[in-house]
Amino acid sequence: MTTARQLGLWADGENSLLPGPLNAITDVTGIAVGHRTLSGAGLATGVTAIVPHQGDLFRQKVRAAVEVINGFGKSTGLVQIAELGTIETPILLTNTFGVAACTEALIQRAIAANPDIGRKTSTVNAVVCECNDGSINDIQALAVTRQDAFAALDAAASGPVEQGAVGAGTGMTAFGFKAGIGTASRRMRIAGQDFTLGALVLANFGRAGDLVLPDGRRPQPHGLSAPEKGSVIVILATDLLLGDRQLQRVTRRAGAGLARLGAFWGHGSGDIVVGFTTADPVAHEAPPFQAVRCLDNNLIDLPFRAAAEATQEAVLNALCAAPATSGRTGRRYPSLADWAKEIQE
Amino acid sequence: MTTARQLGLWADGENSLLPGPLNAITDVTGIAVGHRTLSGAGLATGVTAIVPHQGDLFRQKVRAAVEVINGFGKSTGLVQIAELGTIETPILLTNTFGVAACTEALIQRAIAANPDIGRKTSTVNAVVCECNDGSINDIQALAVTRQDAFAALDAAASGPVEQGAVGAGTGMTAFGFKAGIGTASRRMRIAGQDFTLGALVLANFGRAGDLVLPDGRRPQPHGLSAPEKGSVIVILATDLLLGDRQLQRVTRRAGAGLARLGAFWGHGSGDIVVGFTTADPVAHEAPPFQAVRCLDNNLIDLPFRAAAEATQEAVLNALCAAPATSGRTGRRYPSLADWAKEIQE
Amino acid sequence: MTTARQLGLWADGENSLLPGPLNAITDVTGIAVGHRTLSGAGLATGVTAIVPHQGDLFRQKVRAAVEVINGFGKSTGLVQIAELGTIETPILLTNTFGVAACTEALIQRAIAANPDIGRKTSTVNAVVCECNDGSINDIQALAVTRQDAFAALDAAASGPVEQGAVGAGTGMTAFGFKAGIGTASRRMRIAGQDFTLGALVLANFGRAGDLVLPDGRRPQPHGLSAPEKGSVIVILATDLLLGDRQLQRVTRRAGAGLARLGAFWGHGSGDIVVGFTTADPVAHEAPPFQAVRCLDNNLIDLPFRAAAEATQEAVLNALCAAPATSGRTGRRYPSLADWAKEIQE
Amino acid sequence: MTTARQLGLWADGENSLLPGPLNAITDVTGIAVGHRTLSGAGLATGVTAIVPHQGDLFRQKVRAAVEVINGFGKSTGLVQIAELGTIETPILLTNTFGVAACTEALIQRAIAANPDIGRKTSTVNAVVCECNDGSINDIQALAVTRQDAFAALDAAASGPVEQGAVGAGTGMTAFGFKAGIGTASRRMRIAGQDFTLGALVLANFGRAGDLVLPDGRRPQPHGLSAPEKGSVIVILATDLLLGDRQLQRVTRRAGAGLARLGAFWGHGSGDIVVGFTTADPVAHEAPPFQAVRCLDNNLIDLPFRAAAEATQEAVLNALCAAPATSGRTGRRYPSLADWAKEIQE
Repeated sequence: MTTARQLGLWADGENSLLPGPLNAITDVTGIAVGHRTLSGAGLATGVTAIVPHQGDLFRQKVRAAVEVINGFGKSTGLVQIAELGTIETPILLTNTFGVAACTEALIQRAIAANPDIGRKTSTVNAVVCECNDGSINDIQALAVTRQDAFAALDAAASGPVEQGAVGAGTGMTAFGFKAGIGTASRRMRIAGQDFTLGALVLANFGRAGDLVLPDGRRPQPHGLSAPEKGSVIVILATDLLLGDRQLQRVTRRAGAGLARLGAFWGHGSGDIVVGFTTADPVAHEAPPFQAVRCLDNNLIDLPFRAAAEATQEAVLNALCAAPATSGRTGRRYPSLADWAKEIQE
Repeated sequence: MTTARQLGLWADGENSLLPGPLNAITDVTGIAVGHRTLSGAGLATGVTAIVPHQGDLFRQKVRAAVEVINGFGKSTGLVQIAELGTIETPILLTNTFGVAACTEALIQRAIAANPDIGRKTSTVNAVVCECNDGSINDIQALAVTRQDAFAALDAAASGPVEQGAVGAGTGMTAFGFKAGIGTASRRMRIAGQDFTLGALVLANFGRAGDLVLPDGRRPQPHGLSAPEKGSVIVILATDLLLGDRQLQRVTRRAGAGLARLGAFWGHGSGDIVVGFTTADPVAHEAPPFQAVRCLDNNLIDLPFRAAAEATQEAVLNALCAAPATSGRTGRRYPSLADWAKEIQE
Repeated sequence: MTTARQLGLWADGENSLLPGPLNAITDVTGIAVGHRTLSGAGLATGVTAIVPHQGDLFRQKVRAAVEVINGFGKSTGLVQIAELGTIETPILLTNTFGVAACTEALIQRAIAANPDIGRKTSTVNAVVCECNDGSINDIQALAVTRQDAFAALDAAASGPVEQGAVGAGTGMTAFGFKAGIGTASRRMRIAGQDFTLGALVLANFGRAGDLVLPDGRRPQPHGLSAPEKGSVIVILATDLLLGDRQLQRVTRRAGAGLARLGAFWGHGSGDIVVGFTTADPVAHEAPPFQAVRCLDNNLIDLPFRAAAEATQEAVLNALCAAPATSGRTGRRYPSLADWAKEIQE
Repeated sequence: MTTARQLGLWADGENSLLPGPLNAITDVTGIAVGHRTLSGAGLATGVTAIVPHQGDLFRQKVRAAVEVINGFGKSTGLVQIAELGTIETPILLTNTFGVAACTEALIQRAIAANPDIGRKTSTVNAVVCECNDGSINDIQALAVTRQDAFAALDAAASGPVEQGAVGAGTGMTAFGFKAGIGTASRRMRIAGQDFTLGALVLANFGRAGDLVLPDGRRPQPHGLSAPEKGSVIVILATDLLLGDRQLQRVTRRAGAGLARLGAFWGHGSGDIVVGFTTADPVAHEAPPFQAVRCLDNNLIDLPFRAAAEATQEAVLNALCAAPATSGRTGRRYPSLADWAKEIQE
């Protein structure tokens, strides 16, 4: 698995923040990521699970925000995040027509752990985000099942994150190149304490020829001109102490990271960001009053910068980690890593 | 089936607009409604389909808006409506855990009619709204299937709409009374032309004791004190010529209708409105430019009033049409019609 | 000064919360209200100041939210409240064309107290809300000056609030009746602690004939049919411990109070709510991290109800306190108090 | 006056759209721009007027949208644009504390042309946007008067636009360099018709060291480290046929242009975009129904790209056109043009 840094596509400059030890969303303590990959027989799809903490999320919800940059998308669970500012299930990523199966899987797992759901207490809000991998995958097959979702959840682990054509990223493309799952992280030191912000992207957006590297180069995939109908999902995780409105504002900055790559948040692209913090979670049965620790707004440019940078680098990592592949109709999606190696020679 | 007008709970006053001939959402030309009811063996749930027109909705999309009054809800498809302002499938209503099955059913029907979906053209955005009927129905059973969704779609017809404990409304309650599906309509005469606005509600909201009738009376169901964890879905349909922003503003006024009933858009209630107009639909393959006819803003108070009134009366109709029933744990949900008849005696 | 309760137009029912001792926004500790009234020579206008606390608001900002129910309005300062969730000046209410003078007055007062503004620290966000009193007042005169704003600020006091045709309310009308400033409050007991929510309204909205009293009666002012071009500003204040998102949600519920009065948030009416809490203010120079105490969401229906009720009653108080008057063109705006007394006889 | 193209900082690539003949917002037919510059005696500020068409804007409103990227700003008039989607006065840009005077000037001009305002018809919504020029200008002086606003309005003309340290841009800085007013345009050919989109920016944002040029270079101003407290206003104008929702979406894409420059929409920066189209204006007294011509959504990526590109280049032009200057406290703001010339040598 190759990264943008290994290929020299990302260089820490004076203004750039330092990554965490894994340069991955799992640098945020407690976060686990798991993949389930489906391939063969026309299929190139899957499920990726992001688990915010290892306890019972329904009982101990993480505070969250959602930013719809361009809402041409079929993700589910976002309306309730926007209202309540909490996430109470793991987040699943999959293809557009796999959302329903993943939703049912999350409901079933939540009920299994909490038999009072929908009986003595409220129902549960499943969060499933998606991109359309129809260029490579036979999306009409509705191939993703609840079992695939369970498999991704069961595979979730801390530590390094597999990137590129894996899990939900298996059939994804971006800027005319093969893409998929990517991740990156940034460290923030505030008032003597260390915090981390991590991004994980499902990158399936951007027209061929539009990609801009941090050094201004514009890699062109050969022989492609068709418009892309993609999307990109960005999951931001942090352990920083942020109030609800602050978390919303940090989440919004992922859009700056996407734009720096040359995207203009295209019409057909569902560009959606879900951000959460593991700090000061909210119990399902909470005390009457609970303190949420907030950052001084005068210091918030630091996580803003971290969100933009981590998103930008995560997409580059998705592009670098994915090998060249062929689409459903024979179209070739080259590898950015191959492009970078050719250029170097 | 009893209506609020039959019980004397709604009287046309000087300021009230006249209803259409059916006093139903189907007064809007082309709208069809169908129900699939599941009951017995602990089940009291179902699916209700609202079909905006009788053609292929994916090819000929209706312009739409969504208003999230209180987003404690699990409806799906709303993000794309908010971005693009179009609906490209029928709207299905069901219980909270039936959303996934209904989503898949809508996708399958769309693919069957349009084999290019997800292959040569974009994917499809299924619109499914929900309330939690767990007080009466065993929601953990995940009993709603794709077949049930197909059945509701196949049952869709113009003409009178069955109301009360039917379809998605089978297991719903409101203000401590049995409730469910309700509908109403209003006629609007503008510049010599006749237009209609209709509302269909899935009413499952409001605390016992909070209901206020148009004449100021407050019906109290006996012996109830537990807080409600409901929701209400309002579907507004019209044939009025409205621009995108105008349609959004009209849709928002459903919230006024709910508030007039005594609701304050409670925390646990997913209060969501989807509005659409059958005027000037948008083709999937459209010409470069298309005219959308808009109403003079100085005349928009008329559809505002219609939206508030129709929503208010539709909820009363849902309450009046539903017979008393018992909940899953034996709790009794009386009928507002019985209350009204007792009072009259 | 007559109130709705004195006229029997508001009766505490089983479901209604109890008011504070003054039934006014000033029941919230620290809140002060002041009026400056301009009348004579075609003028019937003024300024009303709501001061959230008695310290330096620029140094100690109150947390706030804004809800634009219908944005046909010229209030200023709202964009920054929506972004940052804080208020750093008193709130001034005035007529539509008085906003600029009031803005400059707030800037000048802030600079006088904080000479570093715009030099060594940021600028200051003045909050001024407005309604159009052109039916009674010669609004083209641009009669409101910075001095009038200073006078309202200097008059601000705790204790009972003068209501009706006073301050910014001098030339306002609602539902065809004379209206203006109104206020009300609600007490909330949570976990053994007492909290208060107060509303102050500048009521200038609603068509003649649309007003609905809590008992269902619809008072008709005589001989009026022209459409109203009004607005209503609602200021909600509380000392309840609320997070940012919670405060937003409470603020939104003022719209339910307006709808219960028969309003449908008319096109020409700028219906705007500013809510703030005096709990856990935010210092201009803050420590890196600060705790904000939040309410358990399961208890938030109580302040929701309080916001709707206090808004509804505050408008009724504005109507009851204002004596009949004549408009600029001779049109008569009767008094709701006179109507109520006639009916009683 | 130097431009980014003259300095080789912008090169038309394969993916870049062509500019209009002036590469200015005035390439959109009917748009006029005027400046009023105040300097000397500690002052370095002014007013810039953008006039959407040469008729009476109150009688013939242009359709508009507003996008608040980061709402730390004191612009006025935005709430009503967001609700109604129209602009009915020229747009004025000025410093933060000049908003009130500019507002009054716009009201007075509107009343002079339309004596029925606030009497027989509604009031008028003045649109004034601002940045804080306190680093160079003595903002506490509240030096901008109604007369200055009148002067800028009277100076408005079609043709080339003066850029850099002029009008509202006189005292502005960006990325540690002197900045101010900049403009650019893009041509779009759709279905055999030519359309134009133009951007005019008031650039006063971005931290020193964060600026990224299109070729990846990062110009560093010497000796600066203090955080910026800026803002940026983007005015987008087009003659393209766009529906309300489409115009909103195009307007949003200005944010991508800002991000490509290295900005992450900083906390203290009021980043606000106002977009309007001259197509299908809305009459104050309109017929009951009016057609608005909309673009096929499948073609909307073209204006999206135009909005991002024009915004990006307009900011670069603001930087290139402004000569080096010294701030109020002696701090030096170098010129990007000087930097570019030094580098070339």
